[in-house]
Amino acid sequence: MPQGRPPVVPEDGLTTRARRTAPVLAVHTGVGKGKSTAAFGMALRAWNAGLNVAVFQFVKSAKWKVGEESAFAELGRLHAERGIGGAVEWHKMGGGWSWARPARPSAQSRTGGSDADHAGEAREGWAEIARRLAEQRHDFYVLDEFTYPLKWGWIAVEDVVEVLRARPGRQHVVITGRDAPQPLLDAADLVTEMTKIRHPMDAGRKGQRGIEW
Amino acid sequence: MPQGRPPVVPEDGLTTRARRTAPVLAVHTGVGKGKSTAAFGMALRAWNAGLNVAVFQFVKSAKWKVGEESAFAELGRLHAERGIGGAVEWHKMGGGWSWARPARPSAQSRTGGSDADHAGEAREGWAEIARRLAEQRHDFYVLDEFTYPLKWGWIAVEDVVEVLRARPGRQHVVITGRDAPQPLLDAADLVTEMTKIRHPMDAGRKGQRGIEW
Repeated sequence: MPQGRPPVVPEDGLTTRARRTAPVLAVHTGVGKGKSTAAFGMALRAWNAGLNVAVFQFVKSAKWKVGEESAFAELGRLHAERGIGGAVEWHKMGGGWSWARPARPSAQSRTGGSDADHAGEAREGWAEIARRLAEQRHDFYVLDEFTYPLKWGWIAVEDVVEVLRARPGRQHVVITGRDAPQPLLDAADLVTEMTKIRHPMDAGRKGQRGIEW
Repeated sequence: MPQGRPPVVPEDGLTTRARRTAPVLAVHTGVGKGKSTAAFGMALRAWNAGLNVAVFQFVKSAKWKVGEESAFAELGRLHAERGIGGAVEWHKMGGGWSWARPARPSAQSRTGGSDADHAGEAREGWAEIARRLAEQRHDFYVLDEFTYPLKWGWIAVEDVVEVLRARPGRQHVVITGRDAPQPLLDAADLVTEMTKIRHPMDAGRKGQRGIEW
């Protein structure tokens, strides 16, 4: 609650205002549902506060599209056309990141690819995010499914932690995915673990539009 | 993943299609962050799929406003004006539910109130939701912070479970809040527990706009 008093007032020499505006690094991990959904929910809130939002999805296929992507496209349009909320960018890995693609290739050519391709793409994605953090391009970053390239050793977690710790200004970052590595958890201000207690797919249901994607 | 095969195909006599379109009852509980945020994230996805979304916040004060409320107001407008996404209604307890208020009273008169008032309002809210479920008014319901009136005995959980189990058609319901009672968990298709691992307010930070609300 915004009115809430923090349980402890730290002796860090910061004013309340400085602490209030401290940039947040959040990690949503665990095997339960809701890690990405909650991150996009946070992005929605950030959009509403007028923050410049950028989503980077570390997914293998650019064909994969969640409902949030379309919804945020509309929100971005609202910002561009009417000045409501914040600006929105949405980038996906899978056959090359959008900023690296000169023209829009066919959906076919943007899927598949080897692990080596994916590793290279993931590294390219992180390099771009590191550049944007350095130049303070956005206010609110979602690095969706970013724990996997860390887990698989494609990107060095030490490098990620160093860049995140050194990021200038007031840039919030939310990282999602299972098995977040410990150094990332240690660096985070907010860690939430989503635990699966029961899921309809356990009972043989398939995912459905509007619910699963 | 939509393409995912369920681990078990149940012998329930249902076709895959019937199972696919089965309405979902989801509960987000636990002491961690993200319960409501993930519910609103699901609502965003539902909105994008064209579902008619209704949010009922069981909060004590109508003054309390999360960023999602404004964002969903814009999304509802997009639907009304351009036919994009689904319709949106957002109702809050606290000094009387909006549908029960003849005219908009001042913000002052809509806050405060005794526990007896809150209990009565919570019951009114649930009665209205039960009516809407019976008449299939919406496709996607968020009952935010609804576990509290159950926990405090203001609303009988058995009644809630009975109404939810008997709800006609294909109406999805997401309920959030700590300490969800066991009969509700038993009735749910999807239960996610959000576990707090670390929170910036532990370190004496205060909440901030765009992040906490």
